[in-house]
Amino acid sequence: MSSSKTVRKLQVVSPVPADIDIANSVQPLHISEIANELNLSPNHYDLYGKYKAKVLLSVLDEVEGSKDGYYVVVGGITPTPLGEGKSTTTVGLCQALGAFLDKKVVTCLRQPSQGPTFGIKGGAAGGGYSQVIPMDEFNLHLTGDIHAITAANNLLAAAIDTRIFHESTQSDKALLNRLCPPNKEGKRSFSNIMFRRLKKLGISKTRPEELTPQEVKKFARLDIDPDSLTWRRVMDVNDRFLRKITIGQGPEEKGMVRETGFDISVASEIMAVLALTTSLADMRERLGNMVIGNSKAGDPVTADDLGVGGALTVLMKDAINPTLMQTLEGTPVLVHAGPFANIAHGNSSIVADKIALKLVGPGGFVVTEAGFGADIGTEKFMNIKCRYSGLTPQCAVIVATIRALKMHGGGPEVIAGKPLDHAYLNENVALVEAGCVNLARHISNTKAYGVNVVVAVNMFSTDSEAELSAVRNAALAAGAYDAVICTHHAHGGKGAVDLGIAVQKACENVTQPLRFLYPLDTGIKEKIEAIAGSYGASGVEYSEQADKQIEMYSKQGFSGLPICMAKTQYSFSHEASKKGAPTGFTLPIRDVRASIGAGFIYPLVGTMSTMPGLPTRPCFYDIDLDTATGKVIGLS
Amino acid sequence: MSSSKTVRKLQVVSPVPADIDIANSVQPLHISEIANELNLSPNHYDLYGKYKAKVLLSVLDEVEGSKDGYYVVVGGITPTPLGEGKSTTTVGLCQALGAFLDKKVVTCLRQPSQGPTFGIKGGAAGGGYSQVIPMDEFNLHLTGDIHAITAANNLLAAAIDTRIFHESTQSDKALLNRLCPPNKEGKRSFSNIMFRRLKKLGISKTRPEELTPQEVKKFARLDIDPDSLTWRRVMDVNDRFLRKITIGQGPEEKGMVRETGFDISVASEIMAVLALTTSLADMRERLGNMVIGNSKAGDPVTADDLGVGGALTVLMKDAINPTLMQTLEGTPVLVHAGPFANIAHGNSSIVADKIALKLVGPGGFVVTEAGFGADIGTEKFMNIKCRYSGLTPQCAVIVATIRALKMHGGGPEVIAGKPLDHAYLNENVALVEAGCVNLARHISNTKAYGVNVVVAVNMFSTDSEAELSAVRNAALAAGAYDAVICTHHAHGGKGAVDLGIAVQKACENVTQPLRFLYPLDTGIKEKIEAIAGSYGASGVEYSEQADKQIEMYSKQGFSGLPICMAKTQYSFSHEASKKGAPTGFTLPIRDVRASIGAGFIYPLVGTMSTMPGLPTRPCFYDIDLDTATGKVIGLS
Repeated sequence: MSSSKTVRKLQVVSPVPADIDIANSVQPLHISEIANELNLSPNHYDLYGKYKAKVLLSVLDEVEGSKDGYYVVVGGITPTPLGEGKSTTTVGLCQALGAFLDKKVVTCLRQPSQGPTFGIKGGAAGGGYSQVIPMDEFNLHLTGDIHAITAANNLLAAAIDTRIFHESTQSDKALLNRLCPPNKEGKRSFSNIMFRRLKKLGISKTRPEELTPQEVKKFARLDIDPDSLTWRRVMDVNDRFLRKITIGQGPEEKGMVRETGFDISVASEIMAVLALTTSLADMRERLGNMVIGNSKAGDPVTADDLGVGGALTVLMKDAINPTLMQTLEGTPVLVHAGPFANIAHGNSSIVADKIALKLVGPGGFVVTEAGFGADIGTEKFMNIKCRYSGLTPQCAVIVATIRALKMHGGGPEVIAGKPLDHAYLNENVALVEAGCVNLARHISNTKAYGVNVVVAVNMFSTDSEAELSAVRNAALAAGAYDAVICTHHAHGGKGAVDLGIAVQKACENVTQPLRFLYPLDTGIKEKIEAIAGSYGASGVEYSEQADKQIEMYSKQGFSGLPICMAKTQYSFSHEASKKGAPTGFTLPIRDVRASIGAGFIYPLVGTMSTMPGLPTRPCFYDIDLDTATGKVIGLS
Repeated sequence: MSSSKTVRKLQVVSPVPADIDIANSVQPLHISEIANELNLSPNHYDLYGKYKAKVLLSVLDEVEGSKDGYYVVVGGITPTPLGEGKSTTTVGLCQALGAFLDKKVVTCLRQPSQGPTFGIKGGAAGGGYSQVIPMDEFNLHLTGDIHAITAANNLLAAAIDTRIFHESTQSDKALLNRLCPPNKEGKRSFSNIMFRRLKKLGISKTRPEELTPQEVKKFARLDIDPDSLTWRRVMDVNDRFLRKITIGQGPEEKGMVRETGFDISVASEIMAVLALTTSLADMRERLGNMVIGNSKAGDPVTADDLGVGGALTVLMKDAINPTLMQTLEGTPVLVHAGPFANIAHGNSSIVADKIALKLVGPGGFVVTEAGFGADIGTEKFMNIKCRYSGLTPQCAVIVATIRALKMHGGGPEVIAGKPLDHAYLNENVALVEAGCVNLARHISNTKAYGVNVVVAVNMFSTDSEAELSAVRNAALAAGAYDAVICTHHAHGGKGAVDLGIAVQKACENVTQPLRFLYPLDTGIKEKIEAIAGSYGASGVEYSEQADKQIEMYSKQGFSGLPICMAKTQYSFSHEASKKGAPTGFTLPIRDVRASIGAGFIYPLVGTMSTMPGLPTRPCFYDIDLDTATGKVIGLS
């Protein structure tokens, strides 16, 4: 067992108590102790209270040239709506590596969305004896990154509609005069951000009065086509009534009404920028380059054209620093960027992973989570995130449960909030074996990237020996490097020691280079079809709208970007009900959008909601504050 | 001069550089040094980076029984749209008291709204050599309080529409079963928050199955009347296109469309709750008691009826702790609650003032700012805030400028963003003297509360000796305790030493008790009319809607609350163009709403926008990040 100072000995109880009770039973270490173990000095981080700190990006400059540790990504099989314990396994694995196997380790997790925390799902800090603490701080506000994204996203939205409004009532000349007001000496000038637009327009003049009338028009009039707008407002609340709304109905807006809607904040392109950026300077460019729609002439209009790219960067300047927290066993966690690998990119950030890899150094481990099943989370991790970061993972963990495998083998539907069918509570090896086709495809898809795949079976008390060994056999037969039964939910890191050992071996024995699923320098459709092939589709069908958008983005010069599919997490296919490993289906592409600043094209596969709703009895009914102690109660 | 360790000697430059350049020229002290000077130990506060800390409310328990310092409120005359330097004077006065007069002092300021920071107004950290630093951290995000308010406000909004939706499709019995789902043993139970509603309904049963069908209906069906809803969504962005919107237009919402709108976040009732609460337990009750509208039977429906009062408290649990910052001269500042004394309560928080009064102790000074002119800011400070806090101010400062007095004397209109008329740049004693009627009325109104009034003339370089002494004479003639010319913008605390001495004398020589403008135990109309009288109105005219609402709130038992008028800040009257000290007008009350949780009735005087807009060229054009240094540029 480790002799490290920060390791805390967990006293486990059976049956496992409620998550919040376990979380509240442990007194977290002051986060400066966790930072100190990572050799971070106080000038490397900003404290946010006693148990959170933002690790400053400048750490990366200091460690430049030093070597990285091993890089492990955790994905899953296609989940049930209950979740298969991917975060829990990620945390458990790290508790094992750090607290029992004496390894330097950092867990990289995504910040949960507050919407689902108050809705159906509850929090996302792991569970049982494998959790990030304090779990209320992890689940609520954290260090304000999602709030910063909401503010920035909506400032851009306000800038768009207001600009359209002001352009509709002013002449070119009046617009220019307003945009370039005279200083005290009566001289007009361009602000710095305006030179970005002038450069894009090929105008090299430096003073407003030098512009010809044509140039005034080109510069001052963005001439945004309202029908082309793809930028929506966001909110980190499950507010279904904002999915589709009409704005501008006040009398002062003079009838300039428009249909639009709100998405949940983590679906904002700005979240994807945060996840994929590599430096402050890079973030400034990505935010400025975000395309919000087209001019009536069909040219893309960016945040910098609206003059707001700098302000967005200022709003995001602290959000770029990942948040340091700790597990129940005192190992370090970096929380950064957002979830929702179905409608978004859904991976934690490149900068968090990069900092972590340097901090653990050679022989250490960084374990990062990719959302939902490996078909979407790990696929995006490899083809988008690793492409932009230049980092190479050695091992991919795939988390499976007997419950989900039974569902894939033909078990009855699993519905959140409803009791489980008896098929899930009693031994049924045949159902498990039949469901392993889902696991097998995730293994072979993931192996194709060149990494070693370790299957982690997140064990429940109802699982039988025979069921568990059926999964192990199927996993090895499908090409997994190893397959391990884990009990970290009940036992903390101790329950994932075998998984830790398997992951270590997998990392030490990589024989292949990283390979992507598709090259970038091919058409948008070719890339979509490569991904569809990995789902098992026999073909792709594009709507008229999708065809139009693909043609437009290609013409605008954006075809070289990677692809971020918006697809259900409940099936390899576009139909949530198709369990197992479906083949022979045609994947429908309903629409295609682009996140030019973040750097990807995102096809919408079927209908995906980008704003969850609340049930009749949301989680919030149980949540309250014990005002005597200041402790949060009822958070799950 | 003070020998205190944290006092910093300012090197002033003339002409005064840009605010951001002054702010960036000073290296702030680590906030733990500021805390230490206030005798706060590290367990009394949470750091938020190096220059901000949240002072924990628990400090109040520790200092219980110790004596308060002097309590000074800073109001102003009726301002021009440019602002008369009220925040700047508040900061300058404190720099004088702390850095030059060796007094213990804490400045209590309100957190600025991010909307105007990116719109026309710019930041709100003071100006020149009297500022709060770091000014970018002060103006943006701060420690997340407004973001928490936005999240809580909008969670409640989502809960309302979703509840109406779910009630529309379910029987009473189905609703009850959903609200009280069975546990693993199949037993149904009420959650704690449901007992609040049961108690309100007079139902003392403790298990769902004991309810009669009538009780099931009463309990489970809130039966909200959509037309009665006063709860709106909020956003801390100047987004005029959200002023009036239609929601629920998505196909899943089945035609349940409704007109509503967004206000700016600082106008949320939750901001008023934050400002007026006195403890965590009190905040829990106020948030749960917020009324969002009526049932179809006309009964008020609260956040606790919706099951969400506890969750709102959890979202606000850190926001209740005020944020410690510092002035340019190293004196402590507590930032808490929000601005907008026109459409909101517009004072900093009771808890910040209470903590500050204990920390400075006897002989020390707490200087707190009340928004806009004394007609709205100071009036609400006295009649709402002091009423709830039980605190008694000794001195009220009224900030005046020659510019605003000239406007009140008949000078041409002052428009933000346009050059000033020459009347404002050259001596014109007659115009100043004529304008002093505005100052005189603010003095006599404020004196009537029983405090000593000190007039602070915030001097500009264009002001002449004759103009300044005209104001001083008029102020003394109107009953001011003293009137002082201040140059803190150009000279920092040194320029407000005379003001500091005058304020000290005023505090030491109070002869009268605190008197409110109206008693609480009278009708809503009587209270409105008392306030209207202080404006100079000869009468009040109620719209039919206002009459209806007053009758309803009286019937619902809310007539004993104080009044928070929503009125333009640009005139004593409801018409912004009526300068000076208008009399004989009839004050129109267009509508009356209620903030039951915060604890006041708010009449709408004429038309007040609760969501600002962006101009053609918003401030954000100048704002950017220097990505090499990480410094914010262009913030004003």
